[in-house]
Amino acid sequence: MSDDEQTTGQSTDRATIGVIGLAVMGSNLARNLASREGITVAVHNRTTAKTDALVEEHPEAGFVAAETLDDFVASLATPRTAIIMVQAGAGTDAVIEQLAERFEEGDIIVDGGNADFHDTIRREEELRERGIHFVGCGISGGEEGALNGPSLMPGGSKEAWEAIAPALRSIAAVAQDEPCVTHVGSDGAGHFVKMVHNGIEYADMQLIAESYDLLRRIGGHDPASLADVYAEWNEGDLESYLIEITAEVLRQADAETGEPLVDAILDQAGSKGTGVWTVQNATGLGVPTTAIGEAVFARALSSSAEHRDAVRQTFTDRPDLPEAPEGFEDDVRSALYTSKVVAYAQGFDLIRAGAEEHGWDIDLGAVARIWRGGCIIRARFLDRIAEAYDDDPSLVTLLAHPYFADAVRDGEAAWRRVVALAVTAGVPVPAFGSALASYDALASERLPAALIQAQRDFFGAHTYRRTDRDGVFHTLWSGDRSEVSAD
Amino acid sequence: MSDDEQTTGQSTDRATIGVIGLAVMGSNLARNLASREGITVAVHNRTTAKTDALVEEHPEAGFVAAETLDDFVASLATPRTAIIMVQAGAGTDAVIEQLAERFEEGDIIVDGGNADFHDTIRREEELRERGIHFVGCGISGGEEGALNGPSLMPGGSKEAWEAIAPALRSIAAVAQDEPCVTHVGSDGAGHFVKMVHNGIEYADMQLIAESYDLLRRIGGHDPASLADVYAEWNEGDLESYLIEITAEVLRQADAETGEPLVDAILDQAGSKGTGVWTVQNATGLGVPTTAIGEAVFARALSSSAEHRDAVRQTFTDRPDLPEAPEGFEDDVRSALYTSKVVAYAQGFDLIRAGAEEHGWDIDLGAVARIWRGGCIIRARFLDRIAEAYDDDPSLVTLLAHPYFADAVRDGEAAWRRVVALAVTAGVPVPAFGSALASYDALASERLPAALIQAQRDFFGAHTYRRTDRDGVFHTLWSGDRSEVSAD
Repeated sequence: MSDDEQTTGQSTDRATIGVIGLAVMGSNLARNLASREGITVAVHNRTTAKTDALVEEHPEAGFVAAETLDDFVASLATPRTAIIMVQAGAGTDAVIEQLAERFEEGDIIVDGGNADFHDTIRREEELRERGIHFVGCGISGGEEGALNGPSLMPGGSKEAWEAIAPALRSIAAVAQDEPCVTHVGSDGAGHFVKMVHNGIEYADMQLIAESYDLLRRIGGHDPASLADVYAEWNEGDLESYLIEITAEVLRQADAETGEPLVDAILDQAGSKGTGVWTVQNATGLGVPTTAIGEAVFARALSSSAEHRDAVRQTFTDRPDLPEAPEGFEDDVRSALYTSKVVAYAQGFDLIRAGAEEHGWDIDLGAVARIWRGGCIIRARFLDRIAEAYDDDPSLVTLLAHPYFADAVRDGEAAWRRVVALAVTAGVPVPAFGSALASYDALASERLPAALIQAQRDFFGAHTYRRTDRDGVFHTLWSGDRSEVSAD
Repeated sequence: MSDDEQTTGQSTDRATIGVIGLAVMGSNLARNLASREGITVAVHNRTTAKTDALVEEHPEAGFVAAETLDDFVASLATPRTAIIMVQAGAGTDAVIEQLAERFEEGDIIVDGGNADFHDTIRREEELRERGIHFVGCGISGGEEGALNGPSLMPGGSKEAWEAIAPALRSIAAVAQDEPCVTHVGSDGAGHFVKMVHNGIEYADMQLIAESYDLLRRIGGHDPASLADVYAEWNEGDLESYLIEITAEVLRQADAETGEPLVDAILDQAGSKGTGVWTVQNATGLGVPTTAIGEAVFARALSSSAEHRDAVRQTFTDRPDLPEAPEGFEDDVRSALYTSKVVAYAQGFDLIRAGAEEHGWDIDLGAVARIWRGGCIIRARFLDRIAEAYDDDPSLVTLLAHPYFADAVRDGEAAWRRVVALAVTAGVPVPAFGSALASYDALASERLPAALIQAQRDFFGAHTYRRTDRDGVFHTLWSGDRSEVSAD
């Protein structure tokens, strides 16, 4: 819609935008939109009771309630814009089809769910052929973000972006005076970037969890004193929403026992799919996002109750926990920060690889900027990432940017001390360790991958390349062991 | 085919079995079949020249050459059995369809390629509806295995298995007097197990590569002396084809320079898909196969030349390499063995999870037995795995079996020393480290996953369970912070 239509929407009694699917995310997003000047929001839900309840509870929103989909479509100013907020999957396809049957050329359908970006690519193509714009829009920030300002990652055509940009800008979180929304790229780009956002979130949470485990088991802290440690860390380089809520969570006492709530919570972490998708796509694209991989596996392992019981009962003689060495707390903070740098660098590598694979023109600096507010991984740190990619949009890896290179150099010794101590003490730090191994592998002059290539050539004639001349070669391992060209 | 038909095949001038696709794997498998008593093999290739060449070069095989597919089908004794040995993917579907159009009820199509098991499930179902048996048969052992005895992993109906078992048994590798073939399970079970075999192969090769890197960088060995080390290791618990060829490869000199060949090989490892599939399926099934994950990522990282250059040029100040401590070589051997135990345990966990998900009745002991010969991961070690699952078919994890538990206990201290030293020295050991972290996590009394659950509940109302009572709970984090039931 143009700005004109947007401001005249109310006067003609037509809604400027519609929201379908009024569970908590959809309701909150609808309320957020309705609170903005000049936006009238039509709302619709399959069960009418939900629509009625929302409208009744929030008279201030001035919602246009639509009982049927026909009413909903009729209530929208043209060109129409509808945001779908239903469970990802087959349900989304059904709602899209019902809308598309009623929509006209130039109308816009926005999917605000956590869709698999492959579905988004397919849907955009199908709808484009019917003259309808389709925008796959990643939305991060949970329920509160949806209500008060999420980070928005829309992907789709430029025309669609220009039409919906004013509304999205008005409801997005604001970081350093900029709304946390940008046109990520065409078709599935927005949902791809949202997927990687969630993958990074898995890694970030796992890294914090490992730091917590170290500080409790070796550092000897209790949750309350750790709450102070994280609150203090939140004043420095690590300042972020996740560190902030870690302090909040650790300070929380169980109402019944007065003991730390975290100790009453079952230590089996759940997951919802986007972390798994990130790893599946990273392996397919050949991007070694090892910290995300370990984080996703760590949650799966934690939920393998039968395995954990069997192993715990078998190995009762565990290593002694050492006294915390001097400066241990600072070391853990450094290890957390350097690991985090590697994890984010891997995540941004994955976005770049996805963009290359799918032909998206993604501005990595802009992605970092829209993650500075509204979303779960919002952090001071993302300013630095944005600056790094703004400095050099073709930066090969964040690790090679002077700011992050210095950060890694500063933390490197502590990082090694912490991981070595954890390994000795039997405290699992899969993500710290994997981030460090990834850095060490990248920094190595030679890797033993040469041996792997030789083995593959030996048993499967997979051939190899050489360091000293071009071409593809094979050694006649079961023959006279001479080398032949295999070009 | 029944044994009767098999032995009368030649006298009626009809072939007992046919092979389509005469690239090196197909040719060798056809020759292997033809060398067995009572088996006459029909051969067919899209390009007739390949068929002619094979028949001409191997008159001893007594091949029935078929120029057209019609000839090929006509040449087979009924019920017909054809083994397809073409590139996995769309080509396989085309050949299957062409055969199916010509085959009759009760005939058998065997796909011997490295198919994605999802394709095998689909193909088996489609052909079953048409009355044709479809067998997805994993084949491991490379070219030489195909010729002299591979490890065979057929999945499909019992009837099809009974019909083809005599031929498969006759060509399979033999380990301890048993042919390396078993009926893995229905439809995609064989290709699933072959996929996991390859995933384990990735982990095994990466672990050996890490041991090699440690012994070179810290141990100060050159490739020739390392060849002796691996040859010696091949006399003990680590005895395996991969250790054996590691020694062979390291002993190999470059014909031109006389220097070790491994040093002339570009250190960028390639891959062919099954490792990636293993990780993708493991994440989807929630099975933490961390060593396979790190191995797949390590190959991808090695091939990221631009990233490696950028990081290497940024971080020129690398940690000093320490002197090898006393007993370092033995420590590395122990670390390799314990890591290998974990990697294989993870792989067998994945087979069990896949079997549960897809309704396959897979005998894990039988899988270990058919991997003892013919295939790339063949090893003495697999006898122990077979024994463990034979002892207790419902064994939760290999780590809990007394034999492997003792092995881990014996190696544990060395394992920790090696990983801690590698971390300190900057030698990347992602798979050693990840295997150790996985073991430590499984053996831990409590995991910091409890903190992750609390964070997820804080920002996304994802709820949590408690250690002290049943039910699902949520804390009103942005309210009065009381806890409510969320059942």
